[in-house]
Amino acid sequence: MKKNQISGVSLGTASSHTRYGDRDDVLVISLEAGSNVSCKFTSNTFKAAPVKQAIKNLETKTKGEKYLLVNAGNANAGNGKKGEQDVTNYCSHFSKTSSCDFNNILPFSTGVIGENLDVEAHKKAFDKALKNNKATNWNKASKAILTTDTKPKLLKRTIKSGSKEINLIGFAKGSGMIGPDFATLLSFVFTDAEISQSLLDKIHSESLKDSFDAITIDGDTSPNDSSCLVATGGSGVKIKKSSQLEITIKKEIKALFKELAKLLVVDAEGATKFISVNVQNAKNENQAKEVAFTVALSPLVKTAMFGNDANWGRILAAVGRCKSIDDISKTSIRINNLPMVNKGSKSKSHSEKSASKAVKKKNIKIDIDLGLGKKTHQVNTSDFSEDYVLINSEYRS
Amino acid sequence: MKKNQISGVSLGTASSHTRYGDRDDVLVISLEAGSNVSCKFTSNTFKAAPVKQAIKNLETKTKGEKYLLVNAGNANAGNGKKGEQDVTNYCSHFSKTSSCDFNNILPFSTGVIGENLDVEAHKKAFDKALKNNKATNWNKASKAILTTDTKPKLLKRTIKSGSKEINLIGFAKGSGMIGPDFATLLSFVFTDAEISQSLLDKIHSESLKDSFDAITIDGDTSPNDSSCLVATGGSGVKIKKSSQLEITIKKEIKALFKELAKLLVVDAEGATKFISVNVQNAKNENQAKEVAFTVALSPLVKTAMFGNDANWGRILAAVGRCKSIDDISKTSIRINNLPMVNKGSKSKSHSEKSASKAVKKKNIKIDIDLGLGKKTHQVNTSDFSEDYVLINSEYRS
Repeated sequence: MKKNQISGVSLGTASSHTRYGDRDDVLVISLEAGSNVSCKFTSNTFKAAPVKQAIKNLETKTKGEKYLLVNAGNANAGNGKKGEQDVTNYCSHFSKTSSCDFNNILPFSTGVIGENLDVEAHKKAFDKALKNNKATNWNKASKAILTTDTKPKLLKRTIKSGSKEINLIGFAKGSGMIGPDFATLLSFVFTDAEISQSLLDKIHSESLKDSFDAITIDGDTSPNDSSCLVATGGSGVKIKKSSQLEITIKKEIKALFKELAKLLVVDAEGATKFISVNVQNAKNENQAKEVAFTVALSPLVKTAMFGNDANWGRILAAVGRCKSIDDISKTSIRINNLPMVNKGSKSKSHSEKSASKAVKKKNIKIDIDLGLGKKTHQVNTSDFSEDYVLINSEYRS
Repeated sequence: MKKNQISGVSLGTASSHTRYGDRDDVLVISLEAGSNVSCKFTSNTFKAAPVKQAIKNLETKTKGEKYLLVNAGNANAGNGKKGEQDVTNYCSHFSKTSSCDFNNILPFSTGVIGENLDVEAHKKAFDKALKNNKATNWNKASKAILTTDTKPKLLKRTIKSGSKEINLIGFAKGSGMIGPDFATLLSFVFTDAEISQSLLDKIHSESLKDSFDAITIDGDTSPNDSSCLVATGGSGVKIKKSSQLEITIKKEIKALFKELAKLLVVDAEGATKFISVNVQNAKNENQAKEVAFTVALSPLVKTAMFGNDANWGRILAAVGRCKSIDDISKTSIRINNLPMVNKGSKSKSHSEKSASKAVKKKNIKIDIDLGLGKKTHQVNTSDFSEDYVLINSEYRS
């Protein structure tokens, strides 16, 4: 098989000539018959029309050829019945153009909430994208789905299995409205391994845990979040349950998801730093999670990091306001391995000079040892800059 | 009694010549014997040394003369045993200077976390402030406690009771690290009415509910938050439990607390708008509260407001991500009385033009009708501007 390809997958992009001028902003992904598709959607009760349609179609999809239709710039969320009719309209149209079962067409949208979609323009664009379909269009695909992202996020991995190869390719978008359960994002990951639907769903859930569910930019979640994991079987390598190969591919898929999630945080709106918050020795998992997310979301911690200020006081204050915390006398905090807080108060070895130096780096690791138990949790986030405010106060204008 | 006075209270300010140059940054408040003092402190597990000392002293205070010692610029939090010794040190010193029982001295601090206090400088400053004590120094007092605030917050009210008058004066500070339970703030409210300790505590708790517990700027809470309500009895008017006068004074004290809390939000760090989030028809109180705080704290809602963007989609997305919300099909949203969302999707009468006009105002009222029950909750907050980021990334530098 050629490089940069997943046997069974082809991709085409086109422009709807709507929000982004002539930039390609729609993507059609064709999946050969026999491919298994695992989809996970936003936990937000407010779900966009395409998400609702995709969930419905997944219940009755058949074994035949499948298409993923993606558009960027318009979320088609909050548009009521009209929004739902619009999705049915362009999916029905595409069903005829492609001679594909309606239930095998899965729509995805990302962009501004509450504006009606220009359906005719998108029908044309999806048709054109179908014509442009190629097995090698991964770069174009990863660019067509972007909104406020500054860079495409595209990753590849190869696994050797005897004389055969298993390929993994994934791309994602998302840089704001990123909260757990999970981030505002569209993510599409493909492998040419043959994986049963149930095993694929299991690997997908496990992969989300340490990736998109463990990052946060602003805590806001969107009505459009969707993650797809597709296995085409095109490599001829079958993954059997509980085999060594299952362990290997799971590890590789997890790593690819984690890396994609990291790329989202690095490209977060206005971000100048990548911040990893590691909570150790919590009483239980919920406490570890609460502390990690509270610190990762604290506007005061995030602005301090932006300002190269090793303000451990704000970190300790964020820990202290967690509902599950009733004792900070055992809490120790390190920033980039430098001790800041030792058992609830300023570390004796703390020096403002070395702290300032440590926090000037682009990658910040905040270790919080609660000393209350054995559980850990890690969350990755970005800092809070003036540009975050600028980007989000001008997004629609 | 003269205007601008509370019989039994005098105030003096001075400069410690530390963080703020020669600006007055310490305040001594003298309370005549017989005054009752009600104090409520931060819910943060991480408590500053002066807060711990004040809590301890309140357990054993006597009926004699009392002093409140306040310093701004240094929070004396996170400094471990040294921080606690420093508080004991300057309070003991002041106890001798003023011939006041140690337990009747209550210390309060606000400012940067984790820096040791210059104790000698503060001893001198408190002594000087005591010498400067006057019954009329309210303006000076309200200025001496400020940190990042741009304006002092000082309010007065008078209640007629037959031929007598009851006076209320209150002042507060706080403009960032403001979260519920409650805001980073110091607040001091005084009345010359005679109120028993238990009634005073009750009025205080009730007054916090709709004031400092109902505002949020960034969700961060501090180790120093303290609210004091003092009744000197100097007016000679006694407030009897369940009397008409109790109802009247409670109403007036509540109103003064609410107004002080509003002033804090108006002067929030970098704020350009005052935003009131009103949740109606929630299933229960917890749901009303969760939705109100989630919307009020959403960085995407706050930046949209800063950008004069009537982005109801972000509001609906914030409602939808609340854990207690499993149905948004009955949710309606209005901004400054203009319908934006009607039962889960864009209101038919919505026009971008009038929405833009509505959101350009300085005061923004966001009404969220969940249609799920009868409970309500209101939270006041500010928008999120570039200046918020600037102020908080440069606070210590």
